[in-house]
Amino acid sequence: MRLRETEVIERIEKALGRRLHASREVRLGIGDDAALFRPRAGHELILTCDWFLEGTHFLRDKHPADSVGWKCLARALSDVAAMGGVPRCFLLSVALPVSHTGRWLDGFLTGLRRASRKFQCVLAGGDTTRRDSIFINVTVVGEVRIGRAVLRSGAQDGDIICVSGRLGEAALGLRILESSKHAARSRDPRLRKHLYPEPRLALGQWLAEKRLATSMIDISDGLSTDLRHLCPAPHLGAILDPDGFPAVELPARLQTRFGDPLQLALHGGDDYELLFTFNRSKLPSLPSKFHGLTISPIGYITSGPNLVWMDRKDAEVLHPGGWDPFRKA
Amino acid sequence: MRLRETEVIERIEKALGRRLHASREVRLGIGDDAALFRPRAGHELILTCDWFLEGTHFLRDKHPADSVGWKCLARALSDVAAMGGVPRCFLLSVALPVSHTGRWLDGFLTGLRRASRKFQCVLAGGDTTRRDSIFINVTVVGEVRIGRAVLRSGAQDGDIICVSGRLGEAALGLRILESSKHAARSRDPRLRKHLYPEPRLALGQWLAEKRLATSMIDISDGLSTDLRHLCPAPHLGAILDPDGFPAVELPARLQTRFGDPLQLALHGGDDYELLFTFNRSKLPSLPSKFHGLTISPIGYITSGPNLVWMDRKDAEVLHPGGWDPFRKA
Repeated sequence: MRLRETEVIERIEKALGRRLHASREVRLGIGDDAALFRPRAGHELILTCDWFLEGTHFLRDKHPADSVGWKCLARALSDVAAMGGVPRCFLLSVALPVSHTGRWLDGFLTGLRRASRKFQCVLAGGDTTRRDSIFINVTVVGEVRIGRAVLRSGAQDGDIICVSGRLGEAALGLRILESSKHAARSRDPRLRKHLYPEPRLALGQWLAEKRLATSMIDISDGLSTDLRHLCPAPHLGAILDPDGFPAVELPARLQTRFGDPLQLALHGGDDYELLFTFNRSKLPSLPSKFHGLTISPIGYITSGPNLVWMDRKDAEVLHPGGWDPFRKA
Repeated sequence: MRLRETEVIERIEKALGRRLHASREVRLGIGDDAALFRPRAGHELILTCDWFLEGTHFLRDKHPADSVGWKCLARALSDVAAMGGVPRCFLLSVALPVSHTGRWLDGFLTGLRRASRKFQCVLAGGDTTRRDSIFINVTVVGEVRIGRAVLRSGAQDGDIICVSGRLGEAALGLRILESSKHAARSRDPRLRKHLYPEPRLALGQWLAEKRLATSMIDISDGLSTDLRHLCPAPHLGAILDPDGFPAVELPARLQTRFGDPLQLALHGGDDYELLFTFNRSKLPSLPSKFHGLTISPIGYITSGPNLVWMDRKDAEVLHPGGWDPFRKA
């Protein structure tokens, strides 16, 4: 199957273009020099982009094409969730081998369309080219009411730290996939969070709209790395409490093979849960579940400079152990 | 030289971040989950993204790092020019080998900063990762007054076709560079348009503001490919007139080595000149130069379905011979 560039674009447009024309905000999409987008009055735009590269972020032979399509958009949307924003449209840059412009592209577009519909974010444009490897870059445009965006920088001494969901589930999925000789089965529930992560958009929007969170970030690199970003002043750190810490569940007999659940939860990336802080006085406003999603208090911000894991017997400094592509060189 | 990811980001921020804080529109840039951008009332946003990949769009050993930095932004800005828009901010996604996080990155950022300042487009955010090859993706956000954007689709039978500048100069520069064993000398005037193209922003804005152009596109793939996009209806084509056609100048003795100037002009890409149409009645409003840049009428839109090169003796159908990454597979 060999297509010309215009045919690749037509295939993308056919899979994702219908919703485009139904969108009020995106006036002009694929097929012109650029897209035209009409922002709503009283809103600011949220702009974010994310690499999704074969060999770095996914494996051609292990990750189903529809997971690649879903995840490349979902993880960019997670940055919009972490600001408390509403997604509007996205740009898709994709470089493909000619051999992947047929069935693989169709699978990819199926996953991308599912995410685009579920999270109500329409395709507005992009760029395509040919490469031996599959490279993807997604830019998402979101909106938030002026003054309501939740930044990384607002936490203060004494603020409670909370996290959504369970941490380490995506990292466990990756370990299971790495240890297998076969391609991932899309329906394997243990792989679900690794293959089809869900950006926590509704929770982020609720926290921003109610002005509950003083700071927020999504966990993409790992808790021990991402929590550091919520302690922007050099004199601020955090105390973490092991009691009720929402780590992934893994039977003891499987821990030798796949790793310690607590380590997966502290340092594993790709969960796309929301990590946020809020003033102690707001504790009664915070539910333990939000639309079925668990919210767990895991510690608080302190004036000490470190992240400290406060075990019953011991206090241990937590060093950033999450994902850093340059460190792993 | 081995840097951590945060150090790579700090280096980018140091080179380009100062202008950011001077920008009214970009309220929050590098260092949070996403950037916040405040659009101006009465304006639409122009959204565009472009690949710039080692091996496809530039060569590590031939192209100076500062040309890579300049050109990755300039070519994305050219899409904003082609809509008649004003650039506002951009997102930079860059994947680098660890070996290129030192001197190469500095050179790259020097060229990028020059383009960012010259075209008044501030860095708002991005994504970095490590790869063996250098991959770049740039998203540009521009603005245009509501209703003033010039689309590809507005040309009508009888409209005059015009082009800015001289065509084929970038393609000639590429041929010269390809035929040389050495890296490009940044100051070689024959390579200038290939290494440091200039998006025709002022011309595009003027044509949009005065409502002169009925359709417009930038020449990135080559005239014979891009002109087709200004004939969107199947029954529309174009007649091109060789008299005064603004082809690159090349002494006859060099044409065997570097190619026929007319072929370079008709099919060579990367010139980033503006190609636009306008109603015949507006001909008196159109200057032959705009701020020193030549404007040449090269033909007109017709009801025949083809692009026809109307020589004195002959009429020849012009087939798309420009850049198509998938066709060259």
